Amino acid sequence: MTYSVQVKVMPLKELLDPQGKAVMGGLSNMGLSAVQDVRVGKSITLQIDADSENAARQIAEDAAKKLLANPVMEYFEISVN
Amino acid sequence: MTYSVQVKVMPLKELLDPQGKAVMGGLSNMGLSAVQDVRVGKSITLQIDADSENAARQIAEDAAKKLLANPVMEYFEISVN
Repeated sequence: MTYSVQVKVMPLKELLDPQGKAVMGGLSNMGLSAVQDVRVGKSITLQIDADSENAARQIAEDAAKKLLANPVMEYFEISVN
Repeated sequence: MTYSVQVKVMPLKELLDPQGKAVMGGLSNMGLSAVQDVRVGKSITLQIDADSENAARQIAEDAAKKLLANPVMEYFEISVN
């Protein structure tokens, strides 16, 4: 079966996120001052052929650790639909 | 109250996603051939000061339409936590 697996890769909370800061500046300039903080990461959708949901999640975790996320700067979350 | 709002911005399904194709090539080279398709988008977390969940969602939608997503190439989804 093919599972659609969502991997969210975000900058670590301890680190500055210059892209997020830039977006926040842009939003302030446009009058959207209700936005207090912005963080920008990646959202990656994988279509994975696997026997079970758990197997698909395992493959996605493998992919995230080896290629999708840089653990020095980023953390990731996986959800399977 | 401050709401944490998640905006997911993904390339439109009709369009090629070269970054996704590159990631898929990388995963294949690493032996993760169970991955059939990859699409790469942005995941943006906004901290929004608003009176209600609906107001926060409205502000996020405004931000997404005006700045975060390019409707020619991308669609977005909003979820409020």
